[in-house]
Amino acid sequence: MESSAFALILTLALAAPVSPAERKCLLSGSWQSDTGCRMVVSTLSEDGRFSGSYLPGSATGDSEILTLPLEGSQQDAGLVPQPIFSFTVHWRLQDSETAQTTVFLGQCYVGSNGEEILHALWLRREATSSPVEDWKATWVGTSIFTRIK
Amino acid sequence: MESSAFALILTLALAAPVSPAERKCLLSGSWQSDTGCRMVVSTLSEDGRFSGSYLPGSATGDSEILTLPLEGSQQDAGLVPQPIFSFTVHWRLQDSETAQTTVFLGQCYVGSNGEEILHALWLRREATSSPVEDWKATWVGTSIFTRIK
Amino acid sequence: MESSAFALILTLALAAPVSPAERKCLLSGSWQSDTGCRMVVSTLSEDGRFSGSYLPGSATGDSEILTLPLEGSQQDAGLVPQPIFSFTVHWRLQDSETAQTTVFLGQCYVGSNGEEILHALWLRREATSSPVEDWKATWVGTSIFTRIK
Amino acid sequence: MESSAFALILTLALAAPVSPAERKCLLSGSWQSDTGCRMVVSTLSEDGRFSGSYLPGSATGDSEILTLPLEGSQQDAGLVPQPIFSFTVHWRLQDSETAQTTVFLGQCYVGSNGEEILHALWLRREATSSPVEDWKATWVGTSIFTRIK
Repeated sequence: MESSAFALILTLALAAPVSPAERKCLLSGSWQSDTGCRMVVSTLSEDGRFSGSYLPGSATGDSEILTLPLEGSQQDAGLVPQPIFSFTVHWRLQDSETAQTTVFLGQCYVGSNGEEILHALWLRREATSSPVEDWKATWVGTSIFTRIK
Repeated sequence: MESSAFALILTLALAAPVSPAERKCLLSGSWQSDTGCRMVVSTLSEDGRFSGSYLPGSATGDSEILTLPLEGSQQDAGLVPQPIFSFTVHWRLQDSETAQTTVFLGQCYVGSNGEEILHALWLRREATSSPVEDWKATWVGTSIFTRIK
Repeated sequence: MESSAFALILTLALAAPVSPAERKCLLSGSWQSDTGCRMVVSTLSEDGRFSGSYLPGSATGDSEILTLPLEGSQQDAGLVPQPIFSFTVHWRLQDSETAQTTVFLGQCYVGSNGEEILHALWLRREATSSPVEDWKATWVGTSIFTRIK
Repeated sequence: MESSAFALILTLALAAPVSPAERKCLLSGSWQSDTGCRMVVSTLSEDGRFSGSYLPGSATGDSEILTLPLEGSQQDAGLVPQPIFSFTVHWRLQDSETAQTTVFLGQCYVGSNGEEILHALWLRREATSSPVEDWKATWVGTSIFTRIK
């Protein structure tokens, strides 16, 4: 079915221009974010899981951070052209005893220019000492990733 | 190992008062949320990964949803008493063609009463057709889980 | 109109049991949150605006903070029984040069027990020095308020 | 006043190089967002309050929405060069009985190119029928506004 879908796309490509919606967004590869971060995503497994590495930008002010491992999965791997994905990064801050974790939740799109683009929101949490302190533990933000060529 | 851990706690309890901060919050087991959801978390692997099942509450109005698989990981598994965790649930809505994914990011605490409690924030995203529509794709909220005994 | 509405409710109350959905949630008054904060909301103006004071809990660890003014508005004031509301609190931290602002967005409900309850999400932001630093400026969380009697 | 501010900047520019951080970001005026929305912000009052109008983009798919009033305030009006601001928009959807409110929380920056830019996160909420349904009421996202010249 994967190959017949590919054949269909190939046929369309020969017969007529392919609209962006018909192209697939592939998560694997190297990406850079609008906030100066970079990541590399591995080839996906058959069930949609992937691993990779995440490199925070120098802009973060956390220059002591090196590359961090990321782990994630993609919904409906191989079935939809613009899949939803999520991944997790656990932070090791060398000058801090505070553990932090970030989860990204996004969708892999083919933009109007035919280029792949990832739109994601993320939550970042630092460890606190008790439930009473929990209310102030979580940041939120967005990241937009484009492919590094 | 569960029982030896219990024996250790019992021994400590007989010897001296144990403050809540010295007890560990264990993610494995059955939990119910303040919004009527339930989940079962497997035993954690050595590197902190876990799987399990997530059962949305009848309160969600999505009665067609059955149990969904969850996949996650815990930071510093076994090293800290109140670990940060994250997990992902991919939704299959039977009466809808719209895919949805939820990511939870939380911390496993031992409350002042000695009971374990999970405080989490989550993001939920539905698939949209293009980056232009992406801005309206994501919900946010919190869940508090307590152990089902 | 306020008094005729009250008369209507009174009539209904005498004639038949009033379901929670028929009761109005009124924002004015004194409230306490599940995280130990308190607030007083003024009488609403005709166009739904209100002011008041916000008192962070001792649990925040920011003991230097005194009562802060809040400003907000309610949607469809007087027209719907369970209105959406929003309000803003600008923080003055005495031992810090960092300005912070919190916005709350919630709905005023009449719970199944007939008691009013406010469910809100909030964003809190601290000032950063440039757009490059902006990504790490914003926290997110929830607050549930119940009336102080 | 706009022109005298410009004259002052010009004078300073002739006398000595002005770093972006020394310039002020002024919220008043016309802005467009990265998601196709436009807004006009009034002159600020002495205590930092402002009003204005918000025009959702055609990209929203909500073509029935016309210009909506916005109400907001700025922290430390006139005291800091890059102030935090917040504002609220109450939505009137013509083909819907569902009320919605959006709150924006952002900071007004002078970018490295000397241009003003607004970075904001927002929460959007629709009315639900009871606290049990409240968990699914709130969306989150970001908007970046640049000045319309």
